[in-house]
Amino acid sequence: MVDILHRVGVETTSPEKVYDALATIDGLAGWWTEDTTGKPDDVGGVVEFRFPLGGFDMEVQDLRSSEHVGWKVVDGPEEWVGTTIDWDLRQEGDYTILMFAHRGWKEPVEFMHHCSTKWATYIMSLKSLVETGAGAPCPHDVHIADQD
Amino acid sequence: MVDILHRVGVETTSPEKVYDALATIDGLAGWWTEDTTGKPDDVGGVVEFRFPLGGFDMEVQDLRSSEHVGWKVVDGPEEWVGTTIDWDLRQEGDYTILMFAHRGWKEPVEFMHHCSTKWATYIMSLKSLVETGAGAPCPHDVHIADQD
Repeated sequence: MVDILHRVGVETTSPEKVYDALATIDGLAGWWTEDTTGKPDDVGGVVEFRFPLGGFDMEVQDLRSSEHVGWKVVDGPEEWVGTTIDWDLRQEGDYTILMFAHRGWKEPVEFMHHCSTKWATYIMSLKSLVETGAGAPCPHDVHIADQD
Repeated sequence: MVDILHRVGVETTSPEKVYDALATIDGLAGWWTEDTTGKPDDVGGVVEFRFPLGGFDMEVQDLRSSEHVGWKVVDGPEEWVGTTIDWDLRQEGDYTILMFAHRGWKEPVEFMHHCSTKWATYIMSLKSLVETGAGAPCPHDVHIADQD
């Protein structure tokens, strides 16, 4: 098992703002993909994220305002199904510290390397959304490779 | 043991250009830190990378033009010493595919999460350097958190 791990500090004294970017359709559509539907604010709900080349369905497993959002991948690329994604938040001075973990990859395949870098760009998009009001969700996302 | 993994595609039909960004002082200073000294083009040589809050000394362990650069961290933060960094290159159409691995972390500490995200921003800086002629090396780097 191998994990994708990231950490950023979001300059805001309102961790609720970061939480809202993870637990509302408007929030998620503002940094990950504009084509987001479903129930991000219900434990047990499913959120559908769609991109030009495919998508991911996430079951919401945990929601604690300003603290934690947990998802499990229930549909999508074979390598993703069954993996989990955790977002942990805490406040330190003027920054909300966001710790990200995409756990449960079976093998460190090339697609995992790609997803690690792409997650970083999307997490920077989330940071930008909260700090400036503008993220870079798909189809306005930062391209990191050829078919991306 | 846990690893940081990344992958980007650099739009160029000259993998030598990507290799030069990893194996020359001018290249490294163009995307990672302007304060780079040492011998990046000698197997067994040491390269010193310096940043406002510290730095890393890397021993060059392998150099294969347009294919691979391997480093071992011989001085720097405790968590980094003894870890290895591998850059693998191959050409696919109009893109040089760059696979990155920073292996040998003892524990997935919070600093490792930070370094994973920060590596992604620097690798995007390397991509930009080769594609446009301009990277974002320290002190002009993308800031991802408070003390960074």
